[in-house]
Amino acid sequence: MHTFSALSALFEERFSQRHFPDHTATLYDPAQYILGLGGKRVRPAAVLMGNELFGDISEDAYQVATAIELFHNFSLIHDDIMDKAPLRRGMQTVHNRYGESTALLAGDVMLVVAYQYLQKTSPALLPSLLKLFNETAKGVCEGQQLDMDFERRATVTLDEYVGMITLKTSVLLAASMQMGAMLGGAGEGNQQHLYEFGKHLGIAFQVQDDYLDAFGDPAVFGKQPGGDILANKKTFLLIHTQETASPAQRQELDDLLAGNDPQKVEKMLSLYRACGVEAWAVALKEKYYTTAMQHLEDVAVLSGRKQPLAELAGYLLQRDK
Amino acid sequence: MHTFSALSALFEERFSQRHFPDHTATLYDPAQYILGLGGKRVRPAAVLMGNELFGDISEDAYQVATAIELFHNFSLIHDDIMDKAPLRRGMQTVHNRYGESTALLAGDVMLVVAYQYLQKTSPALLPSLLKLFNETAKGVCEGQQLDMDFERRATVTLDEYVGMITLKTSVLLAASMQMGAMLGGAGEGNQQHLYEFGKHLGIAFQVQDDYLDAFGDPAVFGKQPGGDILANKKTFLLIHTQETASPAQRQELDDLLAGNDPQKVEKMLSLYRACGVEAWAVALKEKYYTTAMQHLEDVAVLSGRKQPLAELAGYLLQRDK
Repeated sequence: MHTFSALSALFEERFSQRHFPDHTATLYDPAQYILGLGGKRVRPAAVLMGNELFGDISEDAYQVATAIELFHNFSLIHDDIMDKAPLRRGMQTVHNRYGESTALLAGDVMLVVAYQYLQKTSPALLPSLLKLFNETAKGVCEGQQLDMDFERRATVTLDEYVGMITLKTSVLLAASMQMGAMLGGAGEGNQQHLYEFGKHLGIAFQVQDDYLDAFGDPAVFGKQPGGDILANKKTFLLIHTQETASPAQRQELDDLLAGNDPQKVEKMLSLYRACGVEAWAVALKEKYYTTAMQHLEDVAVLSGRKQPLAELAGYLLQRDK
Repeated sequence: MHTFSALSALFEERFSQRHFPDHTATLYDPAQYILGLGGKRVRPAAVLMGNELFGDISEDAYQVATAIELFHNFSLIHDDIMDKAPLRRGMQTVHNRYGESTALLAGDVMLVVAYQYLQKTSPALLPSLLKLFNETAKGVCEGQQLDMDFERRATVTLDEYVGMITLKTSVLLAASMQMGAMLGGAGEGNQQHLYEFGKHLGIAFQVQDDYLDAFGDPAVFGKQPGGDILANKKTFLLIHTQETASPAQRQELDDLLAGNDPQKVEKMLSLYRACGVEAWAVALKEKYYTTAMQHLEDVAVLSGRKQPLAELAGYLLQRDK
């Protein structure tokens, strides 16, 4: 049994090599570049954890974990193009450094290489791993499209937002857990519980992410809060405020969204507080966390084996702070 | 045994359905849109032909043929973004109609759905089909990158150009043939001959394509020749001229490439003719055709079974005209 950080390090050791041929360098160097920007490798560690919950980590688990991490980075490259983001992890995005066309192609080829790693798994598991991987990949694309669709709409319901977030960020974590469980030989029921564990954990993480962007301590959060507010980004907080505001509050909210008030962040935060958003968001995150942990509890293995997954949940949701 | 047109129609009948879920329509309608623009379905027909050369067409062959056609359309959507092309087959390109971000995502999800069709093949064949599909997909991405790289360079050697063209357009036809052969139960040797048949056929087709863009009869070719010349596109013709021109001719060529002479097309064609490019291109196409047919001949099945493939070669290379 390994801790999250041990598994993350174990994966990183194997992962930190070149994943592409030398030729054509103008295509593969940009693909390799983003992998060098680091990251916590949460999803590949989740694959290894899902596996180890049921048995020794198999060689296949590293192939699947690598496929998942490459898929994740493919989606980052393409999302950054769509968002016209200049920076990622404080470094130039791929399209900013190498141009949009090359970034587009580097993302494409990274997705193909993800499938190459998947193809290396044992033939007995390949069909079911590939099936889940494909379904998940479609979901991630749908989530990104919905996110763009929502930007153009005046209002989005909480259910719609949760649906979008689930696809855009949670299903990949959920599928990582489940693919690990498959590799460990888990039955269908246990696989499903682990999928739901990952899914609800992902949603709770997004609630926290939205919360911290508004109410986070800059010293801890690492950046000035209010970025989402300045960008009029639909978040858990904004949506709840829109859904619960009084007519007067709603008017103020609409004026703030439409205008360029220099005090926009402060005024929006006051509005959020007046609508009780802070406590609501904390409770919502807790609700998803509790559901996640219930699914983990329902996995039919000795509870001691679940410790690393519980630890991962605590780490992602900052429950040690 | 079916002719090319019969197989193309047989495939089209199955293919002309919606390949995507109804939701999220903003993502999947654009993906479905490009499939409705038609096309000769050469590659999927090649899968069916490769299969039928060795045995009855299996259900798996339709899955693979669909995967190949979806992959081809994924690459068209993304290439059109990179090329900023407004039209495809006389209709708006996907990015022109739905915006670049959605086109990017629609291409991504189409690639994933291609893998979904592949995943439906029998488990015994899936690993080897997936392996060849992945290698081919990487090659196509490399080819597109090389094409963009070459645009920025002053000169490209003939070998480099053939290498790029092989990756960008020939390996997918070659792999379609080989995957069909796999489905028909062909041995390794026969598979390789069929791959080489498709590869050389693809290169011969590209020689012809470059040739027709310069010397084609507008009434037959369907558009005014000279598009490649006006775009300073590196083609078989331009590269051969650069490699064989006398110093004086080379100077004239460089001046034409650098300037905006209103007589550019006519003057370039004169230069091509002076360098004997016309006959050279016809002979080059013939060379690749002959090599392709040699590989078809080397496939160890009764020669009568090869008739549809020979017919496809004749059709693609206009040997009936």
